[in-house]
Amino acid sequence: MTSDDGLIDALVAVVGPANVVIDADVRAAYETDWTRRFHGSARCVVRPADADEVAQVVRLCSPAAAPLVPQGGNTGLVGGGVPRGGEVVVSLRRLDDIAPVDAQHGEVVVGAGAVLSAVRTQARAAGWDVGIDMASRDTATIGGMVSTNAGGVHVLRYGPMRDQVLGVEAVLADGDVVGHIPGLRKDNTGYDLAGLLTGAEGTLAIVTRVHLALVPELPDRVVTLCAFDGFDDVLAVGAALRREIDSLTALEVFFADGLALVCEHTGLHLPFDRSHPAYLLVECGARAGRADLLVDELAGVLGACPQVRATAVATDAAGREHLWAYRDRHTEAINAVGVPHKLDVTLPFDQLVDFRRAVRAHVNAAAPHARVVWFGHVGDGNLHVNILGLPPDDFTVDDDILALVATMGGSISAEHGIGIAKRAALERAAGSTDLAAMTAIKRALDPQGILNPGVLVR
Amino acid sequence: MTSDDGLIDALVAVVGPANVVIDADVRAAYETDWTRRFHGSARCVVRPADADEVAQVVRLCSPAAAPLVPQGGNTGLVGGGVPRGGEVVVSLRRLDDIAPVDAQHGEVVVGAGAVLSAVRTQARAAGWDVGIDMASRDTATIGGMVSTNAGGVHVLRYGPMRDQVLGVEAVLADGDVVGHIPGLRKDNTGYDLAGLLTGAEGTLAIVTRVHLALVPELPDRVVTLCAFDGFDDVLAVGAALRREIDSLTALEVFFADGLALVCEHTGLHLPFDRSHPAYLLVECGARAGRADLLVDELAGVLGACPQVRATAVATDAAGREHLWAYRDRHTEAINAVGVPHKLDVTLPFDQLVDFRRAVRAHVNAAAPHARVVWFGHVGDGNLHVNILGLPPDDFTVDDDILALVATMGGSISAEHGIGIAKRAALERAAGSTDLAAMTAIKRALDPQGILNPGVLVR
Repeated sequence: MTSDDGLIDALVAVVGPANVVIDADVRAAYETDWTRRFHGSARCVVRPADADEVAQVVRLCSPAAAPLVPQGGNTGLVGGGVPRGGEVVVSLRRLDDIAPVDAQHGEVVVGAGAVLSAVRTQARAAGWDVGIDMASRDTATIGGMVSTNAGGVHVLRYGPMRDQVLGVEAVLADGDVVGHIPGLRKDNTGYDLAGLLTGAEGTLAIVTRVHLALVPELPDRVVTLCAFDGFDDVLAVGAALRREIDSLTALEVFFADGLALVCEHTGLHLPFDRSHPAYLLVECGARAGRADLLVDELAGVLGACPQVRATAVATDAAGREHLWAYRDRHTEAINAVGVPHKLDVTLPFDQLVDFRRAVRAHVNAAAPHARVVWFGHVGDGNLHVNILGLPPDDFTVDDDILALVATMGGSISAEHGIGIAKRAALERAAGSTDLAAMTAIKRALDPQGILNPGVLVR
Repeated sequence: MTSDDGLIDALVAVVGPANVVIDADVRAAYETDWTRRFHGSARCVVRPADADEVAQVVRLCSPAAAPLVPQGGNTGLVGGGVPRGGEVVVSLRRLDDIAPVDAQHGEVVVGAGAVLSAVRTQARAAGWDVGIDMASRDTATIGGMVSTNAGGVHVLRYGPMRDQVLGVEAVLADGDVVGHIPGLRKDNTGYDLAGLLTGAEGTLAIVTRVHLALVPELPDRVVTLCAFDGFDDVLAVGAALRREIDSLTALEVFFADGLALVCEHTGLHLPFDRSHPAYLLVECGARAGRADLLVDELAGVLGACPQVRATAVATDAAGREHLWAYRDRHTEAINAVGVPHKLDVTLPFDQLVDFRRAVRAHVNAAAPHARVVWFGHVGDGNLHVNILGLPPDDFTVDDDILALVATMGGSISAEHGIGIAKRAALERAAGSTDLAAMTAIKRALDPQGILNPGVLVR
């Protein structure tokens, strides 16, 4: 490999020629994101082997004011992990070391490039589990999950990624390394840098290593699908379950039209003898040998809820997977109809019903041919809004809905983050003081603006 | 009230003459902390009624570069809430509004000055509870608990204060107000300002309102006191309990000499027919009517631990209080002997035994007449080290131990914070890069350095 670019030569000296990618064909996989909506060409892709090499890379780029885009498994949905044009992409995937799991205390230290499913395998072999699970588990990296504060289906039980993080090691914009990797459960020695870097989308530092708190493995799981006359009943019963049952691991909502789409696309039969307006999928988990207790507990609470119209219960793996399929296969069923506009929002619990009604009314008026399919992590107040039949490049309806979310006290990004996609929406939705405070922090830690420029803050 | 101080006149115009305290006798209660180790005279004490008045106070002080010390219930232990000399103390106690508890979802919005026990009373009336409990509950304010990221006995179950916070409203150094008070469970819209302000000890902003996540009330509690031959056995059984039992609410350790001191001072009898080297107090909590399940579960796990030498179980309130007294009354028993030097440290779990041994050896060598009494929240790796018999003003031994903590990968402040007391120790223990990052954040949000100067960072 030869190059007329002095920076590239210097990077090659740090990571070796095989780990500086300038060839356009090889670069391509790093330049386009999973959604195919976001892409840009990279000056090069650098693949350091460890935190020290990451620091050296940053120290070369910093004086040159060469912007950097950190990248993990490239499973982001908002354009935060691919170049906008001309940046050096720093791929963390080679930092995939997984230290031995501390089986006594349920902790593990992993490199930023370790893939979620690989960490989970190691954790489970020691009787523990990772508190986050999501569909991208075989590709998403722990560093990316920290940088985006990943969510998924178990947030109501274990919280988002930030709650799994005991310590973060990261390289700052000047190449210095911060980090409390010992990962203590209690540590009141100054500002929570690990928490600040979690969800910062690579704009304040490049995460290189993470000390994770694990959760006990729960091999016994019970899944119950409940049918309701409406969303308000789903919410009332969801609240009762959250209040009464500690063993809840997931509370997912979907509706008649989405379910019909799933059944049509997949060939699955309706779960009950007739269609119902709304459904709640309830999952509980316990340690081995306690499934019966879970079933009794769940039946006790649901039995006291007159809103429940029908239930289907599964305790075996095949039965659970069957019930989960009604929820999980929404995305593919929607994609089979067309390219949806997707929104990922949280509303205060008491605004969810009004929000859904208002969105429906707005879409009916603004785009009468469009169709809205809803599902989501209702235990967290998090709805995924999928609108089919809108022009691909016209985001007027999306913007209107996000404005409504902000008006109703909601979040315009529940779990996907801001990235490039929602920066303008953030500027409209967030308070100017909050934005100014974030910008001040960004300027303080990255005065040249070389870390993931254009993402999250200006 | 008259004054030749233009700032004071301006403050009076905002909060009224009754709420600007210049009289030395009235000021005194705000100028000395609970430990009596920290005191300084205030320029005045201002008692605003709401966030708007706080913002006006800050807007008056900011251009005058008049330093401010935010104060809640003044129960801090590290000198972070009392003046060093000449500052304006901003007492938040009048911001004690508690909004109606959201009984459906377990949330409440409270003013910074609301006292923990008052919030708890409101929460319990709605079937919920506050996830933090500690001895200062009748005086400590929620704002102070946020600013110090308060801990206490239930951290192993619910995490520290930061984990209870869904949203924070706060006044920045320029008088602008930040805040996401809607308090959403999932919100990935930028840097975690609420998390950053939690534990910032009033150096980045003045917390005015907090959206708290509550936890289900657990009226059925079981307390088991276990005796062991040594600390390593305590740790092994503690780890097994943490691994196997979801209903754990506390895991507290103490030792033979501390227990002897407690019994001597209080007249309590030893809990078992003979003394044992080490004790573990285990508390589990469940919803009403499930105490029997807890007892069985606990007996099952403890029965499989050959290290347990003796156990005492209590399920009724009087019995539980009796067992807790052996742990709770350590502080008063120690204080009755003399004025202890107190350290509040976390060690990685696998370093705890070595740490205790090393401290004992060091104290034996450096101060042969001194006596070390240990207790603590062992479920979090958090030990409170009390050294009796050291000269009151000589902190050489303390500093040596904190240096050892840092060397062993521990935290020099598990839950009390840095304040004034541990700033020099923090500067020795923390990585220079971490300190520089904290200082950069402080400069970015408080460029004049008017918020709690001298606390936490320079």
